[in-house]
This record gives sequence, structure tokens and C-alpha cells, in this order.
Amino acid sequence: MHDQTSESGYFTEAESADVVIARNQKATDQRLAEVMAVITRHLHAAVKEIEPTEEEWMKAIQFLTATGQICNEWRQEYILLSDILGVSMLVDAINNRKPSGASESTVLGPFHVDDAPLMEMGADICLDGKGEQMEVRGTIRDLDGNPLPNVLIDVWQANDEGFYDVQQQGIQPEFNLRGRFRTGPDGTYRFWGVRPKYYAIPDDGPVGKLLGALGRHPYRPAHLHYILSAAGYKTLTTHIFDPDDPYIHSDAVFGVKESLMAAFQKVDSPDEMAASEREGWFWRVEHDFILEDAGRNG
Amino acid sequence: MHDQTSESGYFTEAESADVVIARNQKATDQRLAEVMAVITRHLHAAVKEIEPTEEEWMKAIQFLTATGQICNEWRQEYILLSDILGVSMLVDAINNRKPSGASESTVLGPFHVDDAPLMEMGADICLDGKGEQMEVRGTIRDLDGNPLPNVLIDVWQANDEGFYDVQQQGIQPEFNLRGRFRTGPDGTYRFWGVRPKYYAIPDDGPVGKLLGALGRHPYRPAHLHYILSAAGYKTLTTHIFDPDDPYIHSDAVFGVKESLMAAFQKVDSPDEMAASEREGWFWRVEHDFILEDAGRNG
Repeated sequence: MHDQTSESGYFTEAESADVVIARNQKATDQRLAEVMAVITRHLHAAVKEIEPTEEEWMKAIQFLTATGQICNEWRQEYILLSDILGVSMLVDAINNRKPSGASESTVLGPFHVDDAPLMEMGADICLDGKGEQMEVRGTIRDLDGNPLPNVLIDVWQANDEGFYDVQQQGIQPEFNLRGRFRTGPDGTYRFWGVRPKYYAIPDDGPVGKLLGALGRHPYRPAHLHYILSAAGYKTLTTHIFDPDDPYIHSDAVFGVKESLMAAFQKVDSPDEMAASEREGWFWRVEHDFILEDAGRNG
Repeated sequence: MHDQTSESGYFTEAESADVVIARNQKATDQRLAEVMAVITRHLHAAVKEIEPTEEEWMKAIQFLTATGQICNEWRQEYILLSDILGVSMLVDAINNRKPSGASESTVLGPFHVDDAPLMEMGADICLDGKGEQMEVRGTIRDLDGNPLPNVLIDVWQANDEGFYDVQQQGIQPEFNLRGRFRTGPDGTYRFWGVRPKYYAIPDDGPVGKLLGALGRHPYRPAHLHYILSAAGYKTLTTHIFDPDDPYIHSDAVFGVKESLMAAFQKVDSPDEMAASEREGWFWRVEHDFILEDAGRNG
């Protein structure tokens, strides 16, 4: 047998990644060439560790194909795959490294809607009256502890059955459990919603089958979504989580961070109920945020 | 900020792969769990080296989705992606490690058809008379040099324009340039075909766009396909290649190996033409194969 080197352009098992990478030298986009070199190196290293049979390779081909084919305008199974492999959170972490003290980010998720209604502070984002009422409040500050005025707070949440309005069109009112608020001079915010519940990510496709085969459940612990933006500060996309949720330690998409816990406190004293101008008991969630100024390097 | 460990189940950038892998401990299929651990580790390492922006991550999601969506019953874009990244050849190499002296394998490709006609040795697989005629011949032996009888030789090739019959239904006759032959006691084989030409892999989809961006052409150098099978011997799936092809050093799918070269010799002397019972000149390709017995470990 002849000795084959990557100089000939011929493939060898030993030099497999080098042969492929050498072929990309005329790439017009240098960043693409660098990215593909990293991907090729890790892909070949993984194949060499796994030593797949031809049947296993075909199963992988079929999985990747099916994952693409189930996607449509309202379903993105490849983002779901990225999520359950922790890749979405890793990309989020890399792009949102925070100085000590600033609030941490987490994944955007697929259910954000632009242009939710701009509301008065203290308004109720629940439009159908379903679920256990919840007051959410806190203060937004800079890293020096100064309250921040003029922060646009974009919030959205699933209802008490675990569904977002966009998943239940015709059942929930449009823009149910979504709202945007702007802080005043004291940096505080306050609105009403309903206590959220854990919910399953879509698990009837290839990614759901993979989760099942890996012995994993498809649930995300109860949470509220926030995007906080203000001129001169880095935009923060994050959630707050219910620390008492049964899935708090096993979020299917790895979105939970210790610093994003916000206890749900039951408020049922007559005085407090009266002070909040609400009939009956409710849940109260308090969570402050600290924004990083835009000039900092992440 | 709190210190987060994988014990809590919470994600951290530093321990990202460990957190994800720890979640798969209840997998019912141990092989799947091992495979996913290797994939997760390399995937996270690649993301950490690349440090993709969120836009780049979204581009990757869109590429993977489009690659799945263009697949249909006659087009498999994920196999094509595996091919142009050298992964198909790597899986072939891992599954077909040969002892010194045995003929080397290469990829099957997507154009094999079961049940091609069984023909008499010396028959012509070209059914439409198009192209430059080519005689192909050789001997099949075992590792000790003994000629092998009863070897089933399954051959197929593209025509002189670079298309297989299945790509030109209604233009080429069914089973054009395909045939199966069985060796006699002397282990020799011989058939007629047409000199093949280089051709492009399908390059109008996401994989073709990626090839273009990487500065690569989509061509495979001219080749003939073989599957050789015989009782007691390992089945060999391979090609022979035209060493004078312009793309011999840059096969888009990395299928070429030095040991698979077979020179196309022009035969135009009156004596030889008469001996071959052919009118006019022709190409002659001679290539012997050595099969490994089935008992060996690959």
C-alpha cells in the first residue's frame, strides 16, 4: 500500500481532518474558513472516538434530516436541539459575560413577540382572568446602585396551564400575558400577572424522541421572561424562576441560574390585600435587576 | 454571584458539557449515552473555540434546517454534507480497515441500484451506444494470490456526460451502464462500458452553497464503481479512478485513494482491435482486486 499524505489531496484515516481542512484554503470568507476548520477537527475527532457502524452513521443522517423536515414557520426543531444539548445556553453565556454584580442573562426562547402593548406601571397583563393572581415588582439599578429611569421592561409568560398566547391562538386573547413598561425616576417596576407553571417543550418530534431515549423529561420550570433595555446600558434578556418548581434542577434547556431565583410569596393578610387594591389572596414576586453600562467589554 | 456546580443541575459556561452529560444518566440505551457524551463534549469545545455571535449561531441553525428541508426521496443533502466534510470516508475507513495487500474500499455513493442484470463475462453494459468504448478487465485473488472463482462483481458507472441512468430516467435506458458478473475458475473478469467523465455532485442546495463559499468545486473525478462479494470473503465496496482526470487530486467527497488508480490505455493497433472483436479503437482499463477472507478482524 502507498503512503498517502494530505499533499496529494487523498484521504487517509490518520490525517482525515487535515485533508478536509486543506481543501478549504480558497475560501472567500476567512471567518467561515476558521469556523469550518474547528468544526471539521471536532467532527472527525468525535467520529474517531465513537467509531460508528455504517448503520449508526445512517441513523444520525436520518435524525438530522427528520429534525430539519419537521421545522415550519412556527416550529424550529434545530433550535430545540441546540437548547437540549446546552448549546443555546453556551452561546448565550459567551455573548453575555457579565461583570460581578450585574444581573445574569438566559435564553430568549421561541415565544417572544415584538410590539407587546405598552402599559401603565401596575397594570395587569392577564387578559382572561385565568390562574392565580401574582404581583411582580422590583427595582432596576446600575452597577453603582443608582435606580435607573426610562428602562423599557418587556415581559411575557405562559399561563397557568403552561401555554403562551401564540400557542393557543383562538383560545387565549392576543397579547395575553405580555406587556411593556417604562420605569420612572425611582427605577421601580410593578405589574400583575398569573403564577406560571412548568411546561413541556414540544416533544412529539425527533428531539423529543432523543430526550426520551436519554431518560430525560421535556419540562421547563415555571418562569417569567424579561428583556430590559435602556439607552447607555447593555440589553438584558433573562428569566426569573420559581425556586419551588419540581423541575428547577432539571430544566430541559438548562436555562436556570442560581441568581435568577425569585420566591413566590403568598400574600393573604387583610392589610396587605387592601394595600394592593386586590380582592382575595395573591402571590408576590420581588426581583431587582442590575444593568451593565454599554461601554463595558462583556 | 453564587458558585454553581453541575450537582445543582444549573448551567455554567465553564462546566457546560459536564452539566449536559450528567443529565443523560438515565438513558435506557448505553451506547446512545456514550455517543451523546462524545458529541456533547466536542460540540461544546467547538462552540468555545469559535465563540459564535448570536447571528452566527442563527445562521448555523438555518443552514442545518435548510439541509434537512431539501431532502426528498431521491435527494439526501445530509449524506452530501457528510461526504464533503470527509465524514463518509472516515466512517468507511473505520469500518473497512484492511490488512496490508487487500484492496482498499471507498464510499458507496448514492447511485447504486440493487438487482442490476446478471450478464455473461465479456458483455457490454452500455445499452445506448453513447460514449467512447472501454474494455475493463482484471483478476480477483485472495491474500495468498490464489484466483477467486464465484465472485459476484456488481459494477455501475456514469455515462460520458457524467450522469447515471437513475438521474436521466427517460433519457438513458433502464439499467444503462450497470451489470453483475460472476468469476469462473481463473478469477478473471471482463466487460465493456464507456470511458467515464468527471461530474458534479448536486450543488444547487445548501451544501453546494457551502462548497462555493469555501472556494471548492463540486466535481468528482471519473470513476467506475464495484461491489465484490464472495462466500467466505469480506464484501468490498470501492471505485477505480482515472489518474489523468483533472479533479483526481480534489475529489469533492474525498473518495480517491492512490491504490485505486487504474490507467485508461488507448488501444488502436489493428491486431489488438481484432483480438478484442471490436470495431475501431477503444480504451482499456486493467485492475486486479484482492479480497480479505471473512474470518479476519478488520
